[in-house]
Amino acid sequence: MIVSALLTSVGINLGICILFFTLYSILRKQPEIINVYAPRLVAEGKSQLKDCFNLERLLPSAGWVRRAWQPSEEDLLSTSGLDAVVLMRVLIFRLWIHFSAVYAFTGVVCYLLYYEYKYISSKRISYFYSSKPQPRQFTLLVRGIPLSAGNSYSDSVESFFMEYHPSTYLSHMVVRRTNKLQKLIRDGKMLYKRLVDLKSKNPAQKKFTRDGFLGLFGRNVDLVDHYEKKLEDLEENVRMEQLGLSLTGEEVPAAFVSFKSRYGAAIALHIQQSINPTEWITEQAPEPRDVYWPFFSASFMQRWVSRLVVFVACFVLTVLFLIPVVFVQGLANLQQLEAFLPFLKGILTITFVSQVITGYLPSLILQLFLKMVPPIMKILSSMQGYISNSEIEISACKKVLWFTVWNIFFANVLSGSAFYQFSIILEPKIIPQKLAIAVPAQASFFIAYVVTSGWTSVSSELFRVIPLLNDFIRRHCTSSIGDEFEVPSFPFHSEIPKILFFGLLGITYFFLAPLILPFLLAYYCLGYIIYRNQLLNVYEPKFETGGKFWPIVHNSTIFSLILMHILAVGLFGLKKLPIASSLCIPLPVLTLLFNEYCRKRFLPIFTAYPAECLIKKGREDHNNAAMTDFLDKLVTAYRDPSLMPMQHSSDDEGYTTPLLNSR
Amino acid sequence: MIVSALLTSVGINLGICILFFTLYSILRKQPEIINVYAPRLVAEGKSQLKDCFNLERLLPSAGWVRRAWQPSEEDLLSTSGLDAVVLMRVLIFRLWIHFSAVYAFTGVVCYLLYYEYKYISSKRISYFYSSKPQPRQFTLLVRGIPLSAGNSYSDSVESFFMEYHPSTYLSHMVVRRTNKLQKLIRDGKMLYKRLVDLKSKNPAQKKFTRDGFLGLFGRNVDLVDHYEKKLEDLEENVRMEQLGLSLTGEEVPAAFVSFKSRYGAAIALHIQQSINPTEWITEQAPEPRDVYWPFFSASFMQRWVSRLVVFVACFVLTVLFLIPVVFVQGLANLQQLEAFLPFLKGILTITFVSQVITGYLPSLILQLFLKMVPPIMKILSSMQGYISNSEIEISACKKVLWFTVWNIFFANVLSGSAFYQFSIILEPKIIPQKLAIAVPAQASFFIAYVVTSGWTSVSSELFRVIPLLNDFIRRHCTSSIGDEFEVPSFPFHSEIPKILFFGLLGITYFFLAPLILPFLLAYYCLGYIIYRNQLLNVYEPKFETGGKFWPIVHNSTIFSLILMHILAVGLFGLKKLPIASSLCIPLPVLTLLFNEYCRKRFLPIFTAYPAECLIKKGREDHNNAAMTDFLDKLVTAYRDPSLMPMQHSSDDEGYTTPLLNSR
Repeated sequence: MIVSALLTSVGINLGICILFFTLYSILRKQPEIINVYAPRLVAEGKSQLKDCFNLERLLPSAGWVRRAWQPSEEDLLSTSGLDAVVLMRVLIFRLWIHFSAVYAFTGVVCYLLYYEYKYISSKRISYFYSSKPQPRQFTLLVRGIPLSAGNSYSDSVESFFMEYHPSTYLSHMVVRRTNKLQKLIRDGKMLYKRLVDLKSKNPAQKKFTRDGFLGLFGRNVDLVDHYEKKLEDLEENVRMEQLGLSLTGEEVPAAFVSFKSRYGAAIALHIQQSINPTEWITEQAPEPRDVYWPFFSASFMQRWVSRLVVFVACFVLTVLFLIPVVFVQGLANLQQLEAFLPFLKGILTITFVSQVITGYLPSLILQLFLKMVPPIMKILSSMQGYISNSEIEISACKKVLWFTVWNIFFANVLSGSAFYQFSIILEPKIIPQKLAIAVPAQASFFIAYVVTSGWTSVSSELFRVIPLLNDFIRRHCTSSIGDEFEVPSFPFHSEIPKILFFGLLGITYFFLAPLILPFLLAYYCLGYIIYRNQLLNVYEPKFETGGKFWPIVHNSTIFSLILMHILAVGLFGLKKLPIASSLCIPLPVLTLLFNEYCRKRFLPIFTAYPAECLIKKGREDHNNAAMTDFLDKLVTAYRDPSLMPMQHSSDDEGYTTPLLNSR
Repeated sequence: MIVSALLTSVGINLGICILFFTLYSILRKQPEIINVYAPRLVAEGKSQLKDCFNLERLLPSAGWVRRAWQPSEEDLLSTSGLDAVVLMRVLIFRLWIHFSAVYAFTGVVCYLLYYEYKYISSKRISYFYSSKPQPRQFTLLVRGIPLSAGNSYSDSVESFFMEYHPSTYLSHMVVRRTNKLQKLIRDGKMLYKRLVDLKSKNPAQKKFTRDGFLGLFGRNVDLVDHYEKKLEDLEENVRMEQLGLSLTGEEVPAAFVSFKSRYGAAIALHIQQSINPTEWITEQAPEPRDVYWPFFSASFMQRWVSRLVVFVACFVLTVLFLIPVVFVQGLANLQQLEAFLPFLKGILTITFVSQVITGYLPSLILQLFLKMVPPIMKILSSMQGYISNSEIEISACKKVLWFTVWNIFFANVLSGSAFYQFSIILEPKIIPQKLAIAVPAQASFFIAYVVTSGWTSVSSELFRVIPLLNDFIRRHCTSSIGDEFEVPSFPFHSEIPKILFFGLLGITYFFLAPLILPFLLAYYCLGYIIYRNQLLNVYEPKFETGGKFWPIVHNSTIFSLILMHILAVGLFGLKKLPIASSLCIPLPVLTLLFNEYCRKRFLPIFTAYPAECLIKKGREDHNNAAMTDFLDKLVTAYRDPSLMPMQHSSDDEGYTTPLLNSR
């Protein structure tokens, strides 16, 4: 471990962190850019900043730390949802693990895991009890609808559920193929935006265009008039298409079926409906706003194939990604750099430069590459046939996690070609020893990684570098000042894997190189206060999984423990302590048994709600006067948004009546 | 392959087969031992044999072959149940596989598997539609009943189901700890048997015993009187115990809960009942006569632990069993035998003796050892916490199958110490090559095995060697002539693995040593006609799994295919055809995908019935006048048989009223 290189890296990152903190505490008080740092507060009308100037606005302060710390878990639950609470608890929980890790590790971790799983489970149940009736609780997505001769899918659904669920069936909404319509609506929105833009400018400066080919020929027309006409045409097109769809539109063999009670929906969900198990497949419906509409046309076979294709794509991505990692490894090694680029020899001999290169540059480049992974994984997940954004997010979270573990941990530890790594997998006997040799050797790299990727990324999260740049560009370079700005939702799929990966580092390194622990501790403390701040000020929950991220946290911790045990077995083997090595072998077995118990004891709570809860909640509803109103609304809750009337240009009331009447 | 040794073995076994066939066709016509060969016909009163003597009785004949062939599948279904049909179809199906195997193997096997799975699935559904209402269809076993303060389990069950299933709940029957009572009743039955025995003898020959310690002291008493008094005491004890149990008996946290409709039961089965998933666990109840009562006291944790213990025991059995197998392997090798036992040299040089030893003896000894395995596995399965005999049978079937595959196939093929085999597993890369070298070398052993274990065991099944000996001993050596004899049930757990193992041999050897195929073909033809005959004449179905053995058949065939593919990969690799070897690699992947599709398409049908069937059947019941009667009987259907009144000695009517009233 080159201590000086390490210290350089720590120094640089500490500097960047302090800079970000200072800038944040000043910039957040400027009313002009309040929508970068507290878009949520602006959206909720809670922003109290006034335009009047005073000196305090320019001085750095730490008041936000107090405000981020103050709210209780209940406040956080009410403002940012259970997922935010889960995220917060991930951080607290990690702190505790690493504090007690040094003492009686596996036992304490398992105890904490059990306690946390139990806590989150009970939170999930009480969240359900206290929730208002939600459309998803009463609705199932039914797929694989068989077509009987001469009937539409809609008739088929109607007759099936009237036959087998007569007392609980409420309504249904067959999904239609709306790809073309979605494109038209996208175009319309863009046109409308441009029009608003034009109009908001000085009306004296009229712009003209020619109405012929590409605006080059024909007679001069007013640009505003031109766009307005185009928009009208497009809206007419959309209306025609919508009308066509609602009458003769291509139906997809999938439908949202709503029931009169939660229990009725649960019955249809859990019992196999038809003799052929590939027909009438029921699954829980997502919230209407959470539905991912583009991927609905897929059949049973198509979903299957696309899942396979995505699996292969993920695999290929993981293997190809090793190339930049190996390149980064090469950079980290000063001798190799000198050999490849001899003309740099002069510069590389300067102590500071060489320390920056060995300590900081490798992990920075790696991190820039890694930044691209979460979006790619999210795209892959969205091609996998999931029908809700939350499922896509969860799936992407898992993909990013295993990607990170494989590419950052194993690729760096085993540092070699992909083929070498595969050859190790084929000889499981030597894995513990290989790891026990390789893992401690990489300790300095991982400490640098924690500092770069952990500290800096978490403080850049606070400073919101990219949104700030975006805002700056929008404000000064383009002329559009759209009144509407979107409150972002928290990127669970990129942040949770990061936190969990640091957990893995902490667990595996706690007895190999405990020097990493204070750095991780600092990261968790920093993360805890910063994410809390951001959840309160910046992000708004777009959807709610009801704590479904927790099983991922649990599984990855169990994986880390097992990895740590394998390392222990290998290390004691290397140190010629075969008895200690053998005594470690029951540990992973016991951990897996503990995991199996947790799966039985807690996991079912995260997949569906039990009869007890559903029936109790149903009885409460009976006394609730608002239920009739809710059920009326439920009938149309799952209408495809692209079949809703467009309301851009028109004051004409005729346009706003729904074109598609559901039953 | 030593052809002469092989021919000797074939010759000996052919001789034994013909002998068994001849003896069977003569003995089955003797009215004295009709209860060995056709106990079922006797029990059903269909036996038409008369005591009058004629010459035809002593001549061998083949009429039974015609009678075993004639009945259609529907006849077999009605007399021997769906499991018998499944068994028959296993045999037909195997025939077809091996007939077409030589042509386009994997494709044809998969096609046949798909077709058969579909056929059995549709049979299962139509069997359900045509079945009369059965208690198990309306009943669930509920475990993990929590105890609320001051209430019994019975109250707890009552209030839970009245609360959450008010419209469908019918009644319940809490299980009680009856180990002690069961022992008393067993003693009582034995005593009663002895008494009947004594009474049936010449009443003039009175026997006396002393009523003191061990019958050695005290005054002389009549033996019959003595036993009668003892039996009366015992019955009094049983009654007291029963009364005690029904009032204050120790309840077990498990209960049979009956519902008014099949659908009601299914709802409670499929939906998680309580917030804690380890409480109120529901599972399908077995038929009342199929319930395995001894293992009911186990809690969630105890079942878990016992499952683990059984797993370890199975593993140990599998490893220890290798010792006799290795010994047998040694015997098969003539040189080793000469080296160990030099004084036998003279005898061993005789050609005939050496051929018997190499060709016949090894597999005979092996087979005798193997005969002990199914009962042991059944005992292990019964300790695993299953609550029905049919589940125990299915589980034992799986255990015996994997035991056979490991110990007969792999141990013989890899022939070495257990440690050597494990070391191979730890280096998966070399497995295909090792197998491709070792498997063809063992072809002659397996042909001998097919002949010994297959032909002879199947014809000894026809001849029923052990029951015949039992009958002979009982008739001539002991004095008891019990009027009651039990019709045996078919030992699925020992026969199905045997048939499947031969299937594995056929599939793996079809391209390595096709010489084995005619022997297997002969075995399947023989087995088909013999098992058909035995199912019609000997065995009576004691319980009905509804074709649940089929998934085992399917899985083992898929396993055989994969093994064959691995062999093909290894063999082509050995023959320096790397391209052919690589082209084989997609085959197992495609086979596994096919298997995955079958799991999705058919397996759910074998675990539970879909809503469609349950509701249709329920509506039929509405028009069925017998239902009220059935539901009345259902209330007491799941009473523990040991709580039923004993009716041996008594004419007293008071004894026959039920002691335990259920609601």
